[in-house]
Amino acid sequence: MKITEKDTTLTPLTIVKIGGNVVDNAQLLDQVLHQFIKLQGLKLLVHGGGKLATQLGEKLGLQAQMVGGRRLTDAAMLQVVTMVYGGEINKTIVALLQAAGCNALGLTGADGNLIPAHKRQKGALDWGFVGDFDPVSINTGLLQSLFAAGITPVVAPLTHDGQGSLLNTNADTIASGLAVALSPFYPTTLTYCFEKKGVLLDVEDEASVISRITPEDYSQYKVQGVIAEGMLPKLDNAFAALQAGVVQVRICHALDIAHPQTGTALCL
Amino acid sequence: MKITEKDTTLTPLTIVKIGGNVVDNAQLLDQVLHQFIKLQGLKLLVHGGGKLATQLGEKLGLQAQMVGGRRLTDAAMLQVVTMVYGGEINKTIVALLQAAGCNALGLTGADGNLIPAHKRQKGALDWGFVGDFDPVSINTGLLQSLFAAGITPVVAPLTHDGQGSLLNTNADTIASGLAVALSPFYPTTLTYCFEKKGVLLDVEDEASVISRITPEDYSQYKVQGVIAEGMLPKLDNAFAALQAGVVQVRICHALDIAHPQTGTALCL
Repeated sequence: MKITEKDTTLTPLTIVKIGGNVVDNAQLLDQVLHQFIKLQGLKLLVHGGGKLATQLGEKLGLQAQMVGGRRLTDAAMLQVVTMVYGGEINKTIVALLQAAGCNALGLTGADGNLIPAHKRQKGALDWGFVGDFDPVSINTGLLQSLFAAGITPVVAPLTHDGQGSLLNTNADTIASGLAVALSPFYPTTLTYCFEKKGVLLDVEDEASVISRITPEDYSQYKVQGVIAEGMLPKLDNAFAALQAGVVQVRICHALDIAHPQTGTALCL
Repeated sequence: MKITEKDTTLTPLTIVKIGGNVVDNAQLLDQVLHQFIKLQGLKLLVHGGGKLATQLGEKLGLQAQMVGGRRLTDAAMLQVVTMVYGGEINKTIVALLQAAGCNALGLTGADGNLIPAHKRQKGALDWGFVGDFDPVSINTGLLQSLFAAGITPVVAPLTHDGQGSLLNTNADTIASGLAVALSPFYPTTLTYCFEKKGVLLDVEDEASVISRITPEDYSQYKVQGVIAEGMLPKLDNAFAALQAGVVQVRICHALDIAHPQTGTALCL
């Protein structure tokens, strides 16, 4: 069958990022994907890695080295994350979405030259095969072609250096980079989902979701220590995405993807 | 950038299948891919698995079970081949082709519902997650859209059952199935390449390449024992593909992909 092209310009786009806690739990993953397919308009899924890569690395005698929540990636670990992120997780999600009637297609940043990147150059540390990219380099034409063909892209947290090497790249950063790059073409919402109901005022109290955070609020929460650790890069990415034209960034529970009034909305 | 669509109807298409011996040898793989990109017209690459999956399975305590050259696939081995075929091998090839200036995009049969399949039902044996498919089910529209966007598909030997499971499927069969399915749209050549210079009259003598084999020749060679074992499914696939409309099937050395006068040509 020939896929009929349709004009998708100005159709709302939702980019959803799911993390390791969802990917690691087969039952939760299936539930979350069934929420994802309920989203109206265009959609794109970015997935993280979770414990699978660390577990496989350990079975193979490798040791995960983390700095500031990011994984240092030598050649052996690059092979592991390529297998786990680009193979096992990406293709499992694609097969589940296909079974649920969503025409998903899995991509790394190497496929169709989606996300050209370069090896990280920061400080004296050798990050190995860790990639950073500029959102302006993203091949938005490829995604536009796929959307026009009725396809839902599923993006693994891997980029490439254009010289034959894949690179390990943070999934939150890929999600916000894609949102920024696609914002000129579609009104774009970026949804980060995780195991909490949103950003919590009291991390012990699921009822304490902060419904709305501005950059001023964010500065205060950081000073107060309300928002710390793993949430910081997520929120830094989110506010940068808003500054760059993304309509909305939402942080919510993985099972609330299709319920737009839940979670924490970040606004300028 | 928006990819400009072009009319590719009736442009010659070459489908190349590379096997484990190429995939297992990084230097040879790089040379073969540089031959592949020299091919004129549209092109599509199908890759096999090689020893990587068996080696990873062994490291993880799994044992490969082979019947008639085909791998029996339980759930644990399915995870391994999904990682190795869909992840490591597929993405490594895509990154290398991108580095060589070829706009490659990796696919399994689940991606974009490229190859819907079903679990093998043959005899009393439980094949596990092994998939068979009918070429008429192949989503040729997806491939037409990708060709029109200037993309070179790289296909891993995995299909899916449409119910959420990936399935392990022989790469030779995928290559011939794709050639058959695409023949109505493009004059299609199917090239199987391996470590010999073609089908040999004397397996010890690389100079004894049979330049041309008809179905009658094939019957005779089988009776004489000239062609046996692993070559039989390859040639059975090849002649079936010719019967179904493929213009030419060629069996040649992996480094001769771009030299059309070499190797063994199969003809009706």
